[in-house]
Amino acid sequence: MIKFTRKCFHIKTSLFHRNLTTQTGRKKLVILGTGWGGYSLLRNIDKKVFDVVVISPRNYFLFTPLLASTTVGTLEFRSIIEPVRNVRFRQTADFHLSYATKVDRDNKVLHCESVLQPGLGYTLNYDKLVLAVGARSNTFNVPGVEEHAFFLKDIPDARKIRNRIIQNIELSLHPGLDENERKRLLNFVIVGGGPTGVEFGAELYDWIEQDVARVYHQRKDQVHVTLVESNQILSSFDERLRHFAEKKIKERDRFKLVKSSVTRVTSDCVKLSNGEDLPCGLVVWSTGLSPTQFVKSLDVQKNKSGQILTDKYLHVIGDTTDSVYALGDCADIKDNSLPCIAQVAERQGEYVANLLCGKADKEFTFQSKGMLAYVGHYQGVSDIPNMKMQGITSWFLWRSAYLTKLGSWRLRMQVPMDWTKAILFGRDISRFD
Amino acid sequence: MIKFTRKCFHIKTSLFHRNLTTQTGRKKLVILGTGWGGYSLLRNIDKKVFDVVVISPRNYFLFTPLLASTTVGTLEFRSIIEPVRNVRFRQTADFHLSYATKVDRDNKVLHCESVLQPGLGYTLNYDKLVLAVGARSNTFNVPGVEEHAFFLKDIPDARKIRNRIIQNIELSLHPGLDENERKRLLNFVIVGGGPTGVEFGAELYDWIEQDVARVYHQRKDQVHVTLVESNQILSSFDERLRHFAEKKIKERDRFKLVKSSVTRVTSDCVKLSNGEDLPCGLVVWSTGLSPTQFVKSLDVQKNKSGQILTDKYLHVIGDTTDSVYALGDCADIKDNSLPCIAQVAERQGEYVANLLCGKADKEFTFQSKGMLAYVGHYQGVSDIPNMKMQGITSWFLWRSAYLTKLGSWRLRMQVPMDWTKAILFGRDISRFD
Repeated sequence: MIKFTRKCFHIKTSLFHRNLTTQTGRKKLVILGTGWGGYSLLRNIDKKVFDVVVISPRNYFLFTPLLASTTVGTLEFRSIIEPVRNVRFRQTADFHLSYATKVDRDNKVLHCESVLQPGLGYTLNYDKLVLAVGARSNTFNVPGVEEHAFFLKDIPDARKIRNRIIQNIELSLHPGLDENERKRLLNFVIVGGGPTGVEFGAELYDWIEQDVARVYHQRKDQVHVTLVESNQILSSFDERLRHFAEKKIKERDRFKLVKSSVTRVTSDCVKLSNGEDLPCGLVVWSTGLSPTQFVKSLDVQKNKSGQILTDKYLHVIGDTTDSVYALGDCADIKDNSLPCIAQVAERQGEYVANLLCGKADKEFTFQSKGMLAYVGHYQGVSDIPNMKMQGITSWFLWRSAYLTKLGSWRLRMQVPMDWTKAILFGRDISRFD
Repeated sequence: MIKFTRKCFHIKTSLFHRNLTTQTGRKKLVILGTGWGGYSLLRNIDKKVFDVVVISPRNYFLFTPLLASTTVGTLEFRSIIEPVRNVRFRQTADFHLSYATKVDRDNKVLHCESVLQPGLGYTLNYDKLVLAVGARSNTFNVPGVEEHAFFLKDIPDARKIRNRIIQNIELSLHPGLDENERKRLLNFVIVGGGPTGVEFGAELYDWIEQDVARVYHQRKDQVHVTLVESNQILSSFDERLRHFAEKKIKERDRFKLVKSSVTRVTSDCVKLSNGEDLPCGLVVWSTGLSPTQFVKSLDVQKNKSGQILTDKYLHVIGDTTDSVYALGDCADIKDNSLPCIAQVAERQGEYVANLLCGKADKEFTFQSKGMLAYVGHYQGVSDIPNMKMQGITSWFLWRSAYLTKLGSWRLRMQVPMDWTKAILFGRDISRFD
């Protein structure tokens, strides 16, 4: 039996890598992240040209636009994720469930650590490195957010929210519960009126109207939702659509739109800058993005928000080795800033795949396909170039556009099945850890 | 706002209960448990005769025969559970997500405590009480089992096992891992050769053959399974079928059947009474049943295994108030012991429903419909009165029998869908907490 020390293992990898390059004649591309950017790159890269290694703390790609639907069980968690090892992965790509901890750009060596066994570190050589690690939710340093609020970025977040919602409503039905406590449990607060916050509110609304009414009818009139936004909701949408969404939300009983900002979150309350206290049983926080720890630790040029600055070819500025690229939410193109949305990251992944294989030589350009948002009760808004729509047609467009965008036939089979089940039988309210 | 102390709340419940009995003219039936026995009782009880309250630490019914299939993702967790609030529940039944802690039989009062908020206690009056709380896994006081082994009784158990399996295989692919550690991670040990242990082994086998081969091909020959059983596997089955199952398991590469008992389980090893040590990354323990803490605490006659003794009408022996019944795995009929299986509990639930409504007056009798077990690779065994079968027809019978037995159309839609997806696309290997 051979025991490798970390150092000795590094040497072995290097040798192995050199051999591999020689044997296969392919260069080694390391992709960090399996979000829209990294996954798109992985799908599009020509694996005859590169040996690909993917490093990510999760082994699946998440179809983020439908994440809010999983918080109440309209869709199931596994219906909107696709294992990275499934798709066009084959024998030429390798995957490690790890974090990157450090990049040694001079020697083209990446330091990684296992997600599953902290302390299990290793190094990898690369010829090309693409940073597509995404971003974290931004707490804006508001006290208590990190400890008490729920984010909505990934499947474990959605699972926690779903469990909390079911728990709160079950607990609210317990005999012997204080009346104020009962009210608090059924007050849900959403901070941030972007698409995530609005769509989570929409799903909550449908859940209250359809499922609470069905199985928890005693509580139907007691569930309240407050959406806190200091500016406008859906601010990136056209003004008419924004007003439509706002009107829809405001005309709902038990829904409240509060223009204020949050000064503190505690275990049972959200404190607003207007002095109001919102006692609540759930806080979902979706107010923007901030860089990950790894991006913070990188010694490269960044913009004011801490995103890695790249040139118009998505090449990291200041990288003299011509080997490091950055894309998606963790990056920003100097003098050509683009919004942090899935479409941009996906297009960038595709672009870098072509660029690295010599199939593209022009600067990266982006043409938006438009934006969709669901506002609940079969109503949507679509802000598409030359076509602004609202109402049920937009909802229909929302569903069909996402359905065709889903990355695999497995998901395309399961998502409509989940939608059908939710209509026929209601959403599943079973509670388990 | 009124704050109830626990005592004052109890008084209120009593008053409320008396009013209710008067108003509705119905007596109050409290059912403890939502397993096969309790759920069957809930479905069958005439709610025009009784106001029903169900107390259980889980708000769903679990179709246990298919639980092993969820450990590797052949079926999804929510495809085999049905929320208690869904089915024939309506407005005449009430449900609390709680444990029972004490029964005051003289005053017909039940003490309960919330699952969701420890310390939140309350009391309930009853006219009739049915104990259907099931049983726990029996560790036989083997050191380390409670801490290090996984049980397979409920959805959270299956989730933990599924996560562990995926984690182990992902970790085994990490660079820099010690070779012995890699071997250990991919060694799975099952203790107990009853239907649960055998069917879990069968699912593991299918997973290795089909999915490890597909997405973790580098590891296919390195996953090993050891089934430890001190006596015979599937001991309740006919001898010929038992031999068939044993033969099937033994002829598999990478599968081992060990006749021994376990003396200790550690975090990385199972120690056998024959002196052998089995280093392993997962231990699933399924060796029988033992009473729950609540049953242990009850001051009633019990058998040697600690099960509550009842007469032939499932009425708890020694209960002078003629109001307490016990059924399923927590109970045993004096002088007419029946096996702890789903069929018995389900029939008993139905029987008590009829008995309480005056639709039955004879002693409880049980006629087995037979037993089915899946042994992997499309092979099953069926031990049915006057029909012993083995092979692929038994597998087909296994699937179709369970499909028709599923408690709702939602499950009858989803289960075949999951089976189809597993065949077409493979089992989902995405890992998330």
